[in-house]
Amino acid sequence: MTDDTATAGAAPARDVVLCECFARDGLQHEPRFVDTATKVRLIARFAALGFARVEATSYSNPEVVPQFADASDVLRALPRRAGVMFKATCANVRAVRRALADLDAGFGADEISLLASASESHSQRNLRRSRADQWRHIEEMVESARGRFRLVGTLSVAFGCPFEGRVDMRSVLADVERYARLGVKRVTLGDTTGMATPPSVRALYVELRALSPDVMPIAHFHDTRGTGLANCVAALEAGARHFDSAIGGVGGHPARVQYGSGHTGNVCTEDWVALLEAMGVRTGLRLEPLLDAGRDCEAVLGRPLHSRVLAAGLAAAGEA
Amino acid sequence: MTDDTATAGAAPARDVVLCECFARDGLQHEPRFVDTATKVRLIARFAALGFARVEATSYSNPEVVPQFADASDVLRALPRRAGVMFKATCANVRAVRRALADLDAGFGADEISLLASASESHSQRNLRRSRADQWRHIEEMVESARGRFRLVGTLSVAFGCPFEGRVDMRSVLADVERYARLGVKRVTLGDTTGMATPPSVRALYVELRALSPDVMPIAHFHDTRGTGLANCVAALEAGARHFDSAIGGVGGHPARVQYGSGHTGNVCTEDWVALLEAMGVRTGLRLEPLLDAGRDCEAVLGRPLHSRVLAAGLAAAGEA
Repeated sequence: MTDDTATAGAAPARDVVLCECFARDGLQHEPRFVDTATKVRLIARFAALGFARVEATSYSNPEVVPQFADASDVLRALPRRAGVMFKATCANVRAVRRALADLDAGFGADEISLLASASESHSQRNLRRSRADQWRHIEEMVESARGRFRLVGTLSVAFGCPFEGRVDMRSVLADVERYARLGVKRVTLGDTTGMATPPSVRALYVELRALSPDVMPIAHFHDTRGTGLANCVAALEAGARHFDSAIGGVGGHPARVQYGSGHTGNVCTEDWVALLEAMGVRTGLRLEPLLDAGRDCEAVLGRPLHSRVLAAGLAAAGEA
Repeated sequence: MTDDTATAGAAPARDVVLCECFARDGLQHEPRFVDTATKVRLIARFAALGFARVEATSYSNPEVVPQFADASDVLRALPRRAGVMFKATCANVRAVRRALADLDAGFGADEISLLASASESHSQRNLRRSRADQWRHIEEMVESARGRFRLVGTLSVAFGCPFEGRVDMRSVLADVERYARLGVKRVTLGDTTGMATPPSVRALYVELRALSPDVMPIAHFHDTRGTGLANCVAALEAGARHFDSAIGGVGGHPARVQYGSGHTGNVCTEDWVALLEAMGVRTGLRLEPLLDAGRDCEAVLGRPLHSRVLAAGLAAAGEA
């Protein structure tokens, strides 16, 4: 399968493909509504930075997630850009129907992500139905979306569940195969509450490559316990080439509300890009404009975000 | 050489040895003086948590670093604890003389650390003399301290210099050997401004083990760019067993002042211990009392510090 690392024309060469998640996973639990024009401006800015994939919005129920009540408006207004895939999240069949209706109206996402949980308890609390029910829904979603969108299967709590603890790796591998049998060959492995460790990441990636070589795994780590970059490096060294992250490290599950604890957040894009580039891994992104976008996001949210590189500045000239 | 991982009697078994650096590297650039009784109380608390090594103070010039004007008072008041080595930093010959005078008076540090910079520019700015001059001083310091203290050689900016950029690994390896030839077989490799990457860490540790197998390297990473834990994991996997860190991730070089940029800090002890224990690597420390000590440190400094685990809470019961 094509892996997005091959870029055409003047696009920069890249060794890894990053998906910028600020506008969806980042904003999902922001209490203040970010107006549609600002969302569109930011997403277009991310696309111009050189990301091959940008998570744009979610077809959530507006009564549950008011932040994405403007999902269709955002996608309608978003200027298209060659080489950039816009992603929208779909948690259920109704969401896919909305995504299809937008497409029929002449705009919409390039890619939609479907959601499943690796644990029964997380499925019940996050999706409000059993794993068995959700998998039936996913089959229906895939049937109706096939050929219209590029599909990404997401597996939450793949490295540990805040309610059940350890998640059996064999069950995760079986879920990945389940997506693959449905024809969904891009699968996001979510460390939803920061329970992965470098050895557990490595183990899953190694098994996955052996058992499902036709699946393209997408690493999605949350930095809940400060381990995001360490887990990204472990995934990279185990062969991962696709990563999700969010500018400023915002987003992730609202641990304080949902799981009785405090800070959370995605892996911070600026810090991950700085580390990758320092390691000689080409991201196709330039750091200075990325940091400018980070300052923009801080201004929009009205507070300092979590990028260490933005706070510390780039390393001195001459650094490897 | 003994490596501190062997513990006697009721002390907990450990696979790695952590040195808690809050009281020295952590406090070094705190603008507000922490009173002597509070310092002694915190250091004693760290020792009781199960750290084998605790950085207690620095024999700095009080006019330059007023925070450590009470170095001798702290060491005099500190209750001794079996199995715990207290360390004091000595930047010059005068500092070693003070350390020896304290020892002659019946109290003092168990271990002193000597300082050298891996780059000429950093030596000039941080130690105010050339590398050649500093190495002559170190020879004199070792001569006078030999047999009285356990000696630790420190090498700042070993993974990159904020003024010169890349630091030649062969020069770092030669400096380590220089310490070893003086009989200083414990050498701290400092990533002073967070320029190390997992591959550069791995490369240095692999070379070091091949070239200087009798040297015990101590990993000292700053989290300036968010890479502290990723670099710790790389060092661990390359064979490192000794690590420096600071509760709350405080300290490190005052990047904003000295290097024209913002946030910095040591690797956060609570987050590193949580990750190590989740990986099945025994630290000899229990997390709950460690987090309590973190809360204590936050109260003393009057602000939230940088521990993600303290903010997010421990992972759910049942987690690996």
